[in-house]
Amino acid sequence: MPLSAAAQAVGTKIASQFSHAQVDIPQLYSTLSLPQFERKTTLYTIRIIEGRAKRATLQTPHGNIETPVFMNVATAAAIKGALSAADLSDVGCQVALCNTYHLHLRPGEGVVRQLGGLHRFMNWNGPILTDSGGFQVFSLAAMRKIKEEGVYFSSHIDGRKIFMGPEESMEIQSALGSTIAMAFDECPPHPAEKKYIIDSVNRTTRWLVRSKARIDELNTGQLLFGINQGGVYEDIRIQHAKEISEMDLDGYALGGLAVGETHEDMYRILDATVPHLPQNKPTYLMGVGTPQNLLEAIERGVDFFDCVLPARNGRHGHVYTSRGKLNLFNAMYELDDSPIDPECGCQACKNHSRAYIRHLFKAKEMLAMRLCVIHNLHFYNKLMADVRHALDTGNFAAFKKNTLDKWEGHTQ
Amino acid sequence: MPLSAAAQAVGTKIASQFSHAQVDIPQLYSTLSLPQFERKTTLYTIRIIEGRAKRATLQTPHGNIETPVFMNVATAAAIKGALSAADLSDVGCQVALCNTYHLHLRPGEGVVRQLGGLHRFMNWNGPILTDSGGFQVFSLAAMRKIKEEGVYFSSHIDGRKIFMGPEESMEIQSALGSTIAMAFDECPPHPAEKKYIIDSVNRTTRWLVRSKARIDELNTGQLLFGINQGGVYEDIRIQHAKEISEMDLDGYALGGLAVGETHEDMYRILDATVPHLPQNKPTYLMGVGTPQNLLEAIERGVDFFDCVLPARNGRHGHVYTSRGKLNLFNAMYELDDSPIDPECGCQACKNHSRAYIRHLFKAKEMLAMRLCVIHNLHFYNKLMADVRHALDTGNFAAFKKNTLDKWEGHTQ
Repeated sequence: MPLSAAAQAVGTKIASQFSHAQVDIPQLYSTLSLPQFERKTTLYTIRIIEGRAKRATLQTPHGNIETPVFMNVATAAAIKGALSAADLSDVGCQVALCNTYHLHLRPGEGVVRQLGGLHRFMNWNGPILTDSGGFQVFSLAAMRKIKEEGVYFSSHIDGRKIFMGPEESMEIQSALGSTIAMAFDECPPHPAEKKYIIDSVNRTTRWLVRSKARIDELNTGQLLFGINQGGVYEDIRIQHAKEISEMDLDGYALGGLAVGETHEDMYRILDATVPHLPQNKPTYLMGVGTPQNLLEAIERGVDFFDCVLPARNGRHGHVYTSRGKLNLFNAMYELDDSPIDPECGCQACKNHSRAYIRHLFKAKEMLAMRLCVIHNLHFYNKLMADVRHALDTGNFAAFKKNTLDKWEGHTQ
Repeated sequence: MPLSAAAQAVGTKIASQFSHAQVDIPQLYSTLSLPQFERKTTLYTIRIIEGRAKRATLQTPHGNIETPVFMNVATAAAIKGALSAADLSDVGCQVALCNTYHLHLRPGEGVVRQLGGLHRFMNWNGPILTDSGGFQVFSLAAMRKIKEEGVYFSSHIDGRKIFMGPEESMEIQSALGSTIAMAFDECPPHPAEKKYIIDSVNRTTRWLVRSKARIDELNTGQLLFGINQGGVYEDIRIQHAKEISEMDLDGYALGGLAVGETHEDMYRILDATVPHLPQNKPTYLMGVGTPQNLLEAIERGVDFFDCVLPARNGRHGHVYTSRGKLNLFNAMYELDDSPIDPECGCQACKNHSRAYIRHLFKAKEMLAMRLCVIHNLHFYNKLMADVRHALDTGNFAAFKKNTLDKWEGHTQ
């Protein structure tokens, strides 16, 4: 029986037993005769705590991750903007994030596996986190139908019908061979009714249990992070955080944020929820965000981030500097011979002027995008390095204040 | 009086005196009271001759050029495919070629001059050759009207009306600050009637004299190459070659080839014409061509080349190898873990597989184009380095035969 069929059978079995009821995790495990959770040797070492901000190290088979860390998004096993894995090293990237949905559609995880897995495929030797595919199923795919067993949808590329549930997601991520796999979850839209969020979160919990069960069976040695959901409802977030904290996963993410709610709502949810997630595990805020968001979330105990923002902004000529954000299309840079950021040591700033890069954008030269993506990713990675240094020296609070003051009124 | 108005006045003066008659160059100079040609200290040293093939060195203020050389086309002061000047060095480029027409339209030579000239603008310290703008006026611009004084045309970007004659072209190239400027010529279409070609070539000669006069006045220290025209008519080509050889220019180009005629016609014209151009000056075949074309033309005495072909092919997944050309879109490469060319030392071949690059093309990732442009330019530059080595060791004839045999039936 092919993997996907096997997985569907398991999924259906679990689904038939739990339907839409709230999940009792120990009961779920005993009912399924699945192995009880085993405490692994801890891979995550907290080095410094300042307030709730964490400075930690996560050991992985592909090298240590020093946190707080910003993961650089390599959707289809490449950074948009013509950056290679070697460029990722140059910009100080520690962790590449690849999208399971995109790679499942093209080239397919079977191709990647035959070529030796994602690391060899893209020639990146550091840690790789794959998302579950869930977020893209909910944001990109057409004709989406959510059932207990998983999600039926049509590919946004060629319209072909696809099913993905927790088991499929784990199998795909296993075939891709990422360092860290994400549990399959539903990312509900914002705004959503409380009733919908409750049902969705309960399903996400059942999917998390199935994700954990399947990845344990696959026995790939991959780390598994679970995902907290609950929209902007603190009570649901907290209850869900408590439930999934029982599972001794390798890390805990907050999903379903930065999907349209205000920054204040996001910070309120972090304030309420993070204290109910295990402090002695990585705390990952998915899809966030601006440099300000990062500093605010670090202060609230988050230490893993990812976002397409710096690369996407770079491709549109919006670049970050130590004094705020610039739009290089602005005519004021036509004769500006200075680098994007005189304080920056990236390849774009060491070699090229604002005027040159502006010209490249106007002339529609791809090099413009590449240089600005290099700069923005370098900026984000350097910011995280500076945050780590500030934590190491007990100065995070002052660093955060000074940095936000310098950006004030410019970057967002 | 602004430069362009001054130039138009000079152009009109010359035009009024010479109209469409055939040019007597010494008479033209004496009539205009222009300084007589002065022999410069020779900058071009022939090291080896094998048959008609030349192995030489051209000294320039921006470094020596070892020939035969393939110049890499950086149209708008950047290589299409997201390559920077640093990447140009990596692929073994000796000379960057920038397009006067494109830079005149955007950002304008005034901007480039204020930013310190092309070298500083694009951060390339090696030699730069600028074309005259003529070829693009004839191939890209709309509403083109050729007069004795120059060409009236509309920008292909915004439709604005522009005049360019020999004086304007020299002034623009001077403002850009290239190492080698090209004389302003007409590149007639193929096929064209002999009568049209005769008139056109005579005008091109008059424009060459005006180009030389203006660049001498500008006194920039730039080298000036003249351009031989004459379509596929050997007698016109030869007569024109003899005429312009009198002018002691810094180099001589063959223009108006690779514009639709057969390869055999091109080789026939080279066989007929090159012997009538000064052997002790650079011999430049403009806009050519395939790797085979290069070897055939080198055998016929050409030692400078440029062409958009390798970069354009690279952007479409067509890559050159020591065993012929590949199309990376071909399904046969889906699981091919080998580099584009196992014998190649470029960044693409050292780090990435055919399967990965094919995936990048299918996923529309810009990195695909960048890697293939890097590879193809490296291939062309390495081919020229191998040719130079073959000439240095007296083995060009054998090298050419062996290389063509290896490519047979693959590359074209």
